[in-house]
Amino acid sequence: MSKYKIIEEKLKYSGKISKFYSQKILLPNKKKIDIDILKQQDAVAILAITEEKKILLVKQHRFGANKEMVEIPAGYVDENESYQSAVKRELLEETGYEAKKIKKIFAVYTSPGIATSKLILFFSENVKKISKQNLDEDEFVEILELSFKEFFENNFEDSKTLLAREFLKNIVK
Amino acid sequence: MSKYKIIEEKLKYSGKISKFYSQKILLPNKKKIDIDILKQQDAVAILAITEEKKILLVKQHRFGANKEMVEIPAGYVDENESYQSAVKRELLEETGYEAKKIKKIFAVYTSPGIATSKLILFFSENVKKISKQNLDEDEFVEILELSFKEFFENNFEDSKTLLAREFLKNIVK
Repeated sequence: MSKYKIIEEKLKYSGKISKFYSQKILLPNKKKIDIDILKQQDAVAILAITEEKKILLVKQHRFGANKEMVEIPAGYVDENESYQSAVKRELLEETGYEAKKIKKIFAVYTSPGIATSKLILFFSENVKKISKQNLDEDEFVEILELSFKEFFENNFEDSKTLLAREFLKNIVK
Repeated sequence: MSKYKIIEEKLKYSGKISKFYSQKILLPNKKKIDIDILKQQDAVAILAITEEKKILLVKQHRFGANKEMVEIPAGYVDENESYQSAVKRELLEETGYEAKKIKKIFAVYTSPGIATSKLILFFSENVKKISKQNLDEDEFVEILELSFKEFFENNFEDSKTLLAREFLKNIVK
């Protein structure tokens, strides 16, 4: 049992994909403090390698960073959707590629101090192009296919993409 | 210039270390949408190796994950503080170790879709114990010193700690 107890929780703001809460916590020293918590659906991402040995990446504007970024395909898990289904769906929607066999490589908290949600990172080889992109009307996503060399030499600004890069470096070396 | 324009921003909730905003965005297709943005100070973290070739980690309860987690030392950058000063301060406060030479290895967005803040990851070798921990009265942090083998074999649940692990695997191999 945790020595930290959530004794009160108040919804402070409900956004479109995230909710912000204030929690009152009873600490091990019996003091009470107020903290902020962000709740969202968990996310999935995939390091996907094509039959031609290219790594699939997507380039799009990101609202938090407020700039265009290059990342591995990723997205939120829908309610009642498994991580496996979600990551296959996101890959297909964003790139048109199908991943038949996927392997979970990491399950991590990206902001454990404030966010309750996890990111589940998958790996798949020999993914196949089976359709066009299938984006929402307000989504603008460019597909990139990088060689291993290009992927390893790129200084990505996205945490999960760098984690995938370092993981792949380790297994191909 | 970005084809995405922030045309309105409203503060929705101001927490202790984070602020939640709603932004109205003008998209490239001229439509307007509302999105949520989380603003915090940038964070720093450090992969610190002692003279005895041990990796320094800290174990503490994390409120977002709502559990005890093992991570590399990390913390928020104070206002008007450099990343370099912040990471040396955090390492010293959390572990009592001093890092003389530090090297920036990654600067990443951990949640580029929603959060404006970055995480800057540093690396330092031969860090020296020079004092006791210096924690806030409500902080309870246990120091761990892992061998390279233990560090490489541990399945950390924290994104930045796994990124540091994969980075180190690549440079020692």
